[in-house]
Amino acid sequence: MKKNALIVGATGFGGLGLIEILLRHPGITIKQLVARRDVGMRINDVFPHLTGFCELPVQSNDDIDYSDIDIAFFSTPDRAGMTLIEKFIEKSIPVIDFSGDFRFNSTDDYALYAKNKGMETTHHAASALPKTVYGLPELYSEKIRHANIVGNPGCFAICMILGLLPAVKEKLIDTETIICDGKTGVSGAGKNPGETNFYPQRYEDVNTYREGTHQHLVEVENVLSSEGGNYKVFFVPQIVPLNRGILITAYGKTQKGIHTKDVEEIYRQFYKQAPFVFITNRSCHTTDVRGSNRCEIRVTVDERTGTLFITSVIDNLVKGQSGNAVQCANLMLGFDETAGLQVPPFYP
Amino acid sequence: MKKNALIVGATGFGGLGLIEILLRHPGITIKQLVARRDVGMRINDVFPHLTGFCELPVQSNDDIDYSDIDIAFFSTPDRAGMTLIEKFIEKSIPVIDFSGDFRFNSTDDYALYAKNKGMETTHHAASALPKTVYGLPELYSEKIRHANIVGNPGCFAICMILGLLPAVKEKLIDTETIICDGKTGVSGAGKNPGETNFYPQRYEDVNTYREGTHQHLVEVENVLSSEGGNYKVFFVPQIVPLNRGILITAYGKTQKGIHTKDVEEIYRQFYKQAPFVFITNRSCHTTDVRGSNRCEIRVTVDERTGTLFITSVIDNLVKGQSGNAVQCANLMLGFDETAGLQVPPFYP
Amino acid sequence: MKKNALIVGATGFGGLGLIEILLRHPGITIKQLVARRDVGMRINDVFPHLTGFCELPVQSNDDIDYSDIDIAFFSTPDRAGMTLIEKFIEKSIPVIDFSGDFRFNSTDDYALYAKNKGMETTHHAASALPKTVYGLPELYSEKIRHANIVGNPGCFAICMILGLLPAVKEKLIDTETIICDGKTGVSGAGKNPGETNFYPQRYEDVNTYREGTHQHLVEVENVLSSEGGNYKVFFVPQIVPLNRGILITAYGKTQKGIHTKDVEEIYRQFYKQAPFVFITNRSCHTTDVRGSNRCEIRVTVDERTGTLFITSVIDNLVKGQSGNAVQCANLMLGFDETAGLQVPPFYP
Amino acid sequence: MKKNALIVGATGFGGLGLIEILLRHPGITIKQLVARRDVGMRINDVFPHLTGFCELPVQSNDDIDYSDIDIAFFSTPDRAGMTLIEKFIEKSIPVIDFSGDFRFNSTDDYALYAKNKGMETTHHAASALPKTVYGLPELYSEKIRHANIVGNPGCFAICMILGLLPAVKEKLIDTETIICDGKTGVSGAGKNPGETNFYPQRYEDVNTYREGTHQHLVEVENVLSSEGGNYKVFFVPQIVPLNRGILITAYGKTQKGIHTKDVEEIYRQFYKQAPFVFITNRSCHTTDVRGSNRCEIRVTVDERTGTLFITSVIDNLVKGQSGNAVQCANLMLGFDETAGLQVPPFYP
Repeated sequence: MKKNALIVGATGFGGLGLIEILLRHPGITIKQLVARRDVGMRINDVFPHLTGFCELPVQSNDDIDYSDIDIAFFSTPDRAGMTLIEKFIEKSIPVIDFSGDFRFNSTDDYALYAKNKGMETTHHAASALPKTVYGLPELYSEKIRHANIVGNPGCFAICMILGLLPAVKEKLIDTETIICDGKTGVSGAGKNPGETNFYPQRYEDVNTYREGTHQHLVEVENVLSSEGGNYKVFFVPQIVPLNRGILITAYGKTQKGIHTKDVEEIYRQFYKQAPFVFITNRSCHTTDVRGSNRCEIRVTVDERTGTLFITSVIDNLVKGQSGNAVQCANLMLGFDETAGLQVPPFYP
Repeated sequence: MKKNALIVGATGFGGLGLIEILLRHPGITIKQLVARRDVGMRINDVFPHLTGFCELPVQSNDDIDYSDIDIAFFSTPDRAGMTLIEKFIEKSIPVIDFSGDFRFNSTDDYALYAKNKGMETTHHAASALPKTVYGLPELYSEKIRHANIVGNPGCFAICMILGLLPAVKEKLIDTETIICDGKTGVSGAGKNPGETNFYPQRYEDVNTYREGTHQHLVEVENVLSSEGGNYKVFFVPQIVPLNRGILITAYGKTQKGIHTKDVEEIYRQFYKQAPFVFITNRSCHTTDVRGSNRCEIRVTVDERTGTLFITSVIDNLVKGQSGNAVQCANLMLGFDETAGLQVPPFYP
Repeated sequence: MKKNALIVGATGFGGLGLIEILLRHPGITIKQLVARRDVGMRINDVFPHLTGFCELPVQSNDDIDYSDIDIAFFSTPDRAGMTLIEKFIEKSIPVIDFSGDFRFNSTDDYALYAKNKGMETTHHAASALPKTVYGLPELYSEKIRHANIVGNPGCFAICMILGLLPAVKEKLIDTETIICDGKTGVSGAGKNPGETNFYPQRYEDVNTYREGTHQHLVEVENVLSSEGGNYKVFFVPQIVPLNRGILITAYGKTQKGIHTKDVEEIYRQFYKQAPFVFITNRSCHTTDVRGSNRCEIRVTVDERTGTLFITSVIDNLVKGQSGNAVQCANLMLGFDETAGLQVPPFYP
Repeated sequence: MKKNALIVGATGFGGLGLIEILLRHPGITIKQLVARRDVGMRINDVFPHLTGFCELPVQSNDDIDYSDIDIAFFSTPDRAGMTLIEKFIEKSIPVIDFSGDFRFNSTDDYALYAKNKGMETTHHAASALPKTVYGLPELYSEKIRHANIVGNPGCFAICMILGLLPAVKEKLIDTETIICDGKTGVSGAGKNPGETNFYPQRYEDVNTYREGTHQHLVEVENVLSSEGGNYKVFFVPQIVPLNRGILITAYGKTQKGIHTKDVEEIYRQFYKQAPFVFITNRSCHTTDVRGSNRCEIRVTVDERTGTLFITSVIDNLVKGQSGNAVQCANLMLGFDETAGLQVPPFYP
């Protein structure tokens, strides 16, 4: 029997991504769309390309009908859904949240995240934190299957963790030497016009930002260090004139005697059950994953400099956001992990 | 009195960049344009936007009139100008060469460069190598003033060396830990249509290439190590959907007790005579240098991870190529170093 | 039972589009891929994003196995498939051809088309021409259902005809006044790198080409005039720095007393059975159809100047090429017209 | 002796364009920069690329020093400078205004313009209107030389008028049949982030807007009809994913017996004194004029359909705005018409 989904924050890019994926999902029906803006409009007035595919009205929080919802997606900004999510938890409706609100099990970690992002640091649903599960199916699929509340990871965090984790787990990298250099497309800045996505600036601009202080670092270091060790990552995000896509180049010192083939084999073993992770020995291209839930990873050992070099690439709006969320939902609702997600990248 | 210039390779982007700059140069007149293709056409048939500004014919090598040339620019591919350049040297006409042919003082270094690029490694003008000068005016202005043959550096090399050199000179970075992550615009691949600059691929693609093996590394390590120490750099170039611009993010381990302000001061001192290098404490943007001969550099110490983080940014076609060459020519011909080059970046 | 498809010209954008659509088609299986280049490679070596979805080898013409093919798509250049297609006809295997070779019922019309394109004008399969059907399902669905050889229309032609036909049929436009101003994305120039799709030129260029002489005009005037009248269209194609999409603005003089609402109603009636044509009263955007088989049309009467103004918009690679071809194939093979094609546009 | 300029609205793209041009002007010095936003900042904090070239502070209206200003440029939105401009007129300081406020000699024409743009229609400086001059130097250079207040034309209007006027003057086009199809880059929408210049929407979008009702039509029809006849133009502007550039394709019915060569000759004669207008017989490209004050025009007669087809192309920020304004200022201040403006287009 089909499951019913509610999307809060339906009019942003996260909400749109969910709609596009769930429209082709064999087991989930979109039932209600909620947003703060555009209430009363049909979703295809907000996104005209949805005409004929999804024409549900946009409702306000106050009009949510909790009675027939099997899963709720919160594609809302940090702190916007915190208290509303508690209502769903009370009613035992599982929730997947796209913000950083439920990515941490402790208020301390949350406070660090919030501080990095320059936000208020008090968590208003602190009692829920110990039960939350970090929504990275390649690592925590069993926990996700039984979770009531999943914090969908940050897009950069997904790309960095998938790229680094097997090496960290096998202690291939010196804990103190990890550099992540991140390139993201413009859609990562969301649906509000501003300086970042201002065409006359952006079409010929590359720039760094939040150098060493990006909020996703907290998640990344948490996950890496959970494998033992105290990993610190220096991460520099950059915006490039691309719409979709994240490419991370990660660097760390490795021991002598480790060769590319060995590392490749470790990665292939690690991800052999992961339907969306591909280990490649070609140079990575964002075009090879655009529009899909795929993460492509390449590992190389540069013996001349003793560097383990890892490239990982995802579509920030799919594996970096709504696709990963549906992958979690599939586990939570008992569907095949890939349901609704087996679509080839969009090219050219 | 005005000096006369000859441009060999006039119909590529390097040649075009020279024409555009020399048209506004108060002391240099473009006299002859030479190329292999398009011989017999006027240059404004090749580049229609030059109509009314430069309408010289394109000549073949065979028709060069050596009698009234004060300086020759060779904007030719590797190995294409090698033997012709010798003719100019014989006639004591100073030459600036854009290829890698004359960037090294020894055949060994050249052979390493050529091997990295997958080319034949024998140099056909080996006797000239000891006299060549590496054309980076911020480092070697005195040598350039007296040079007869200058090897204009690679675009990535210029951006990396300018970013790293002051730190290397002051021994701020561990010799074994330098990572350079380079982002370049598409125009760097030149004027021949191919996969790299194929619009349907490129408009939404970011990719790495020649990871750890880019030919510019030889130059960079040479210059850095000439200050003492044996520097090895792991460099990963990437192409982003930008037309003009290079942004390098460079990383190295630094000692405890070194702070951003100290490093900034070292850089400001180092470059206080350099008219085109700007030290900034904002995030770097390629748009802040596009169309200009400027190099903007930012230095930061991340005390949490012990990382010295340097960003440097140039326009690959100007400071990375023709602008740097004219800066060298100004020194060689006795003009002010900035003649013809004091143009604000083109924006938006 | 599923039908088997063969694609000739599988490694171009037309072939890729077919693969992408047929992968999700419930009734058609891709059986053989044929091309002149890349023979022996797997298709996912040519298009890495297909890895895991389609990994068939690329064969040569000589290795075609005719025994289990139910339909053949020829996504080949003009004149390249002419004689090979005859073999399929002999074996009663239905063919859909993407070139102009089989879009005309007479050698005279073909010769005019070929002349406009600067090609040899003799047709080498002339005896097949009278039986060919012009593959525009919105007009000729019955004929297509029974056709053995369908000429898939030109992308510009589809967009112009769908936009103009209802007005022409109802005699709303003066036969002598039709102007079509066409804007196309760069992918329309195919998969070979050249000047048109050269990124450094294209990213900031708009230009006209083949002004008044584009080869698709022959098709357009044929179809319009088949409704009575002798329609002449002045058509100016333009390339804009967009990857996918065609937007046609069409203009013609109309009679007094005709209002926008009337024309809209005529168009809605005309296309009420057409599952992919949408009549809208918003300004058209290529983003509203990108990645889909949709054609969106807007009609307006400007009473001040007596102009009937029509905008029509498609994705040149889908409704303008492979999507339209699959729509024809659905009719020919007895599937629902929309099978495999009900996908919302890709956004953002 | 050098003249002093004041720029009101200095922090928008119009103001920036003026700064960039005046920095290289041999006879004009930028003295004061005025804006509503960013008062107190230096202009190079607003536009970092100006560092080292122009670092004047941004002042408020209230701090204008009228005592040493020889010319004032108002690069302000419609109705924002209306009353302030009167102060300059009282003090006999010549003004060039970029808005529509002073493009008309009558309040009726202004009201029509204002109505089309959805603004209040009362003019608050109505007494100045009869003395204003329409700032198109190719037509009205004598009047501009003696003007105190010049209304700098709309960017689309400049491109349409320059393209159409010679044909209209020679009565080559039927008054009732002119169609203008306009393509503009995104920078035309100014410096405020909004939907039009939102990268994720724009990078793959082409769309029409204000179809038949664009406010520049009033100017265009005024100027065309001033040559006799009652010209009506149907104009459809479109935004394409280009930053800079306007390309107009204009169409009209012409008489039998008129040939391309004749029309070309008429255009060459008409513009023989115009230093920035080039008549070409190649297809027009926006890249051939980008960054320059050039207008390139091509005329063709399509004898098959009796259409006179005209393409005209400009950079919307230069000949379409600040370059044209400086050209007017040159006339008003007695400089050579081309002073500061003889720069080749920026390419690639």
